[in-house]
Amino acid sequence: MKTKIWLSTFAVVMAAMVIGCKPKGAQSTLAGDAANKVYVPPGQHDEFYNLVSGGFNGQMSVVGLPSGRTLKILPVFSVHPENGWGYSEESKPMLNTANGFVPWDDLHHISVSTTNAEHDGRWAFANGNNTPRIARVDLTTFKTVEIIEIPNSAGNHSSPYITENTEYVVAGTRFSVPTGEDRDVSIDSYKDNFKGTISFLSVDKNSGHMDIAFQIEAPPFNFDLARAGKKKSHGWFFFSTYNTEMAHTLLEVNASQRDKDYIMAVNWKRAEEYIKEGKGKKIKAPYAHNVWDEETHMATSTIKENILSLDPTELKDILYFIPCPKSPHGTDTDPTGEYIIGSGKLAAIIPVFSFTKMLEAIENEDFEGTIGGMPVLNYESVLHGEVEKPGLGPLHTEFDGRGNAYTSMFVSSEVVKWNIETLEVLDRVPTYYSVGHLMIPGGPTGNPHGKYMVAYNKITKDRYLPTGPELAHSAQLYDISGDKMQLLLDFPTIGEPHYAEAFPASLIKDKQVKFYPMEHNNHPRALKGINDARVERDGNNVHVYMTSIRSNFRPDNIEGVRLGDEVYFHVTNLEQDWDVPHGFAIKGANTAEILIMPGETATLKWVPDRVGVFPFYCTDFCSALHQEMQGYIRVSSADSNVPIKYLTGEAE
Amino acid sequence: MKTKIWLSTFAVVMAAMVIGCKPKGAQSTLAGDAANKVYVPPGQHDEFYNLVSGGFNGQMSVVGLPSGRTLKILPVFSVHPENGWGYSEESKPMLNTANGFVPWDDLHHISVSTTNAEHDGRWAFANGNNTPRIARVDLTTFKTVEIIEIPNSAGNHSSPYITENTEYVVAGTRFSVPTGEDRDVSIDSYKDNFKGTISFLSVDKNSGHMDIAFQIEAPPFNFDLARAGKKKSHGWFFFSTYNTEMAHTLLEVNASQRDKDYIMAVNWKRAEEYIKEGKGKKIKAPYAHNVWDEETHMATSTIKENILSLDPTELKDILYFIPCPKSPHGTDTDPTGEYIIGSGKLAAIIPVFSFTKMLEAIENEDFEGTIGGMPVLNYESVLHGEVEKPGLGPLHTEFDGRGNAYTSMFVSSEVVKWNIETLEVLDRVPTYYSVGHLMIPGGPTGNPHGKYMVAYNKITKDRYLPTGPELAHSAQLYDISGDKMQLLLDFPTIGEPHYAEAFPASLIKDKQVKFYPMEHNNHPRALKGINDARVERDGNNVHVYMTSIRSNFRPDNIEGVRLGDEVYFHVTNLEQDWDVPHGFAIKGANTAEILIMPGETATLKWVPDRVGVFPFYCTDFCSALHQEMQGYIRVSSADSNVPIKYLTGEAE
Repeated sequence: MKTKIWLSTFAVVMAAMVIGCKPKGAQSTLAGDAANKVYVPPGQHDEFYNLVSGGFNGQMSVVGLPSGRTLKILPVFSVHPENGWGYSEESKPMLNTANGFVPWDDLHHISVSTTNAEHDGRWAFANGNNTPRIARVDLTTFKTVEIIEIPNSAGNHSSPYITENTEYVVAGTRFSVPTGEDRDVSIDSYKDNFKGTISFLSVDKNSGHMDIAFQIEAPPFNFDLARAGKKKSHGWFFFSTYNTEMAHTLLEVNASQRDKDYIMAVNWKRAEEYIKEGKGKKIKAPYAHNVWDEETHMATSTIKENILSLDPTELKDILYFIPCPKSPHGTDTDPTGEYIIGSGKLAAIIPVFSFTKMLEAIENEDFEGTIGGMPVLNYESVLHGEVEKPGLGPLHTEFDGRGNAYTSMFVSSEVVKWNIETLEVLDRVPTYYSVGHLMIPGGPTGNPHGKYMVAYNKITKDRYLPTGPELAHSAQLYDISGDKMQLLLDFPTIGEPHYAEAFPASLIKDKQVKFYPMEHNNHPRALKGINDARVERDGNNVHVYMTSIRSNFRPDNIEGVRLGDEVYFHVTNLEQDWDVPHGFAIKGANTAEILIMPGETATLKWVPDRVGVFPFYCTDFCSALHQEMQGYIRVSSADSNVPIKYLTGEAE
Repeated sequence: MKTKIWLSTFAVVMAAMVIGCKPKGAQSTLAGDAANKVYVPPGQHDEFYNLVSGGFNGQMSVVGLPSGRTLKILPVFSVHPENGWGYSEESKPMLNTANGFVPWDDLHHISVSTTNAEHDGRWAFANGNNTPRIARVDLTTFKTVEIIEIPNSAGNHSSPYITENTEYVVAGTRFSVPTGEDRDVSIDSYKDNFKGTISFLSVDKNSGHMDIAFQIEAPPFNFDLARAGKKKSHGWFFFSTYNTEMAHTLLEVNASQRDKDYIMAVNWKRAEEYIKEGKGKKIKAPYAHNVWDEETHMATSTIKENILSLDPTELKDILYFIPCPKSPHGTDTDPTGEYIIGSGKLAAIIPVFSFTKMLEAIENEDFEGTIGGMPVLNYESVLHGEVEKPGLGPLHTEFDGRGNAYTSMFVSSEVVKWNIETLEVLDRVPTYYSVGHLMIPGGPTGNPHGKYMVAYNKITKDRYLPTGPELAHSAQLYDISGDKMQLLLDFPTIGEPHYAEAFPASLIKDKQVKFYPMEHNNHPRALKGINDARVERDGNNVHVYMTSIRSNFRPDNIEGVRLGDEVYFHVTNLEQDWDVPHGFAIKGANTAEILIMPGETATLKWVPDRVGVFPFYCTDFCSALHQEMQGYIRVSSADSNVPIKYLTGEAE
């Protein structure tokens, strides 16, 4: 079969655009004080926590600002051999899905929980794109404590954005798919058989626990990014769409035909009312819901079977479409909630829509058409105005709380600052290179901290010492406290940074959990003291109940294991001090180590593959006698009579 | 069974030592110019590459100095969902061992190749502790290109140190084990049945390919660290030992009984002569040897069966023992090759041995005893002198090339500078906290660049914004160009930094591979152009020959796959530009994504678990139309008649 290619003039034009161009005549505007502005002297702390998505690493990075130092990488959707995430028996269920154990995902966006549209520092949410999931990270432990799968979705990209009191986290599909039970349909029946969906996940006010409250069916467009309304627009949600052409092949050409796509406005308060009225239908859609318990130190995974689906072609007034030029990426609401900015990556202007005008247009039925019976609002009627000549390839907009917006320009590699009311361009600075998302601390909230801005870039090339074909993605820190933006610092990132959020350190730094109190350790195989250490056989399972404390494991000499056994090391770290983890690893294991935090219990499963004597040791340098923190376990043949035997101490 | 514990007074004293103490009265000696000294303005490059071990993450970090920025994390011994290392079909063999696929290891030390005892910037070597392995990283691609397993070893810690022309990489066991074929012996028969081994791996001058040249049997001690002789001491190797008590339980007490352990001196030139004479015996010891091929873009794994073993109790003059107080960690040779410094972590002094005196003592048979017939040299006869009152818990020593040594003090959390000739302590600075290894660029070579020193610390606690119970390990950068050391910067690290090396960027920065030329891509399933894209069925295997180029996959619509098939996506990235990787992922896969560098071919295996239509997409933001770089693959039931069908282009 011959591939048939269709190339429009447009595609040829785009070919010139697809490489992020180096801005011409770009001059670093570094002042001599940049060094001092980013320098955090040894022993002093950064001013802001910056939570940065890792993209294709499936992790979240915690970066300090203004230093740009990576303070932690925490695993969310991907296994993490470093600390045993996805390898310990306790954490394995966290990566369970309806497709079984999935060791990787692509984490794009982060939302920090808000109350009254301000960061409250309780949780961070993150999306997994590939096998659609939403995760919740506890910001007192910086640990992933919940992951919920999103059924009827694919490329879970316009996620995980939140409403102003964290009532909901939303998850919008990027790729439309045949929804409902697994359906074998031809790909070219796309327009008939594929659908988009938007899921609203409720968040419990106290525990943070999520559930899929409802899912709204949508046309088979691609959904890119989203933002909740806030303050006056609280109750609404805005999603950018592309591929409203509904193409299913060669999208770079076929999904770039129309001059305008849409911002989809969702009246979720109206959806709630329908649900109260008993509307919507339960449909079969299995998905995993995984929850970490900090008292048992383990996760459970439950496969749920149904979701509540709302059909907006029947349930009127839930969905409206605002025309938006062209293939919009970002759709961002300003701190007042009045303005909605669409960043059409193939558009020559930036449209700014007015929420007030939107309500008026709805009220007046000022429609220019319908999609599946749902109203398309009149572009001009909803428009506040357009930013003229902003640059090439607008992607995403953040806000400083002083009436200014900052839009990233992928193709012309720059950030453009403009006034939201007047739409006047005030300043522009180059990025190096091909900027994606921007971040201003508190930028998406009602109360931005407009001191710094970070540009997360896609191309690094010559910015750092070269490291072969594969280079770090890069970020750049700007001072935006004055009229003109000032580039302060280049810093490399871990994985690919998409969206990020930041907030003042004072919000959470005094609420950090330093260790897990032993009296709250309810792991069923936890040990409360060294004298409880023991080994028990249960059929072909051998359970080693082990303690770790500077600087020994108990027991550290174990015999009586037979080939064919499965050995479970349940290791309790009895330390009750900050920053004294112990690690546990055993030679030849087809798994990773485990790191056990003070007061925690974790389990490593080991299936010996031969007879012999195998050392195990502590993998985290814990004391001057760390090197001595080791032991041996003996494996005998399957028919051996060596009895179970264990000790720590003088040889018997 | 009751655990029996034996506690000496010594152990009680140690209990006070095991926590890294905060140095008393420690004052930051920051000068106001520290900010400028570490600031690398945007667009400028760092002066040094610093290759840092990741410890329990199994990775290597590339850090720029003086900025402290992490420029790259490259996977060595652990799977890396981020780029598909250990998940792509091509890279899986790299993590094969005699125990099968091992997804994790504990990477402790790094050696950069040398010629005439100076860094030549060709390769970096790294050790895997847990399932003993040595890896080689190519410094033109920053990719792991070879991993060789070490049989008869466990806790491969005194590794991977090199001789002055990289003739050999050595690998010394940390834990002694029953050697030879798998042996089921009781642990308390330790002294009779367990052995230590030291392996010498040859390194091919041109290709870098390693092989296990020979292995030397050693007493059942624990081997901690090592250094080659250089210049006048070229031909010798020095290993620190502890647990010369030969304890196998509660080592924190039982392996800390003797006042002196040993530095083991190995005359490897003599070993070479024995081998030329046909001495040594082949013994059965299976181990994996895994090699990456940059032209086929894939790895092969070969299980080798035998090694050549030398018994130094029969082959005289290979091993000598130098008494060294107490439980030495580091054994370091100064840039002249004359001095060997033992850092006994439980010792109150630092002994400095003279190579000249060592040869004299051997010549004069100035022995104070024997171990298995092998000479123990007289301590006083070999001693150049002792550094008095250096601090508590000396661990490791580096050199500045100006006659000074710098020793890390774990327990008293400081670095002590002293003169090698006079043994006078010249300066001391606090570390925050509990310093392990030190690093001076070129420090272990004959030509150190004594401008900076980095302390890699074990405890971080309050140094950064807190991130829950699990904190980053930390490093500290000092200016050592003057008489007094000056602390410049705290920077967090990835994983746990053990040893690290650094060298001037000029050595390698112009030799970097930026992409793989398509004309050298000899992957058997590579495509040379978009028109070769196709799908082929071979029984239950479906091979998708796919191209990726901004911004499409070909094919992007695939049908005819049936439940029960195994689908192999062979993706060739046709780009020939720097910094334009493409990624490939498919929904619900029980594996990771793959990142494909320009000019490379990589393969992802996917076993669909249900009928339906599954999207795939590019995971690395590659152009303004990256979001459009997606496709669909349809899976039908096992008995379906849907034929294989594929296209990229207008729907048919």
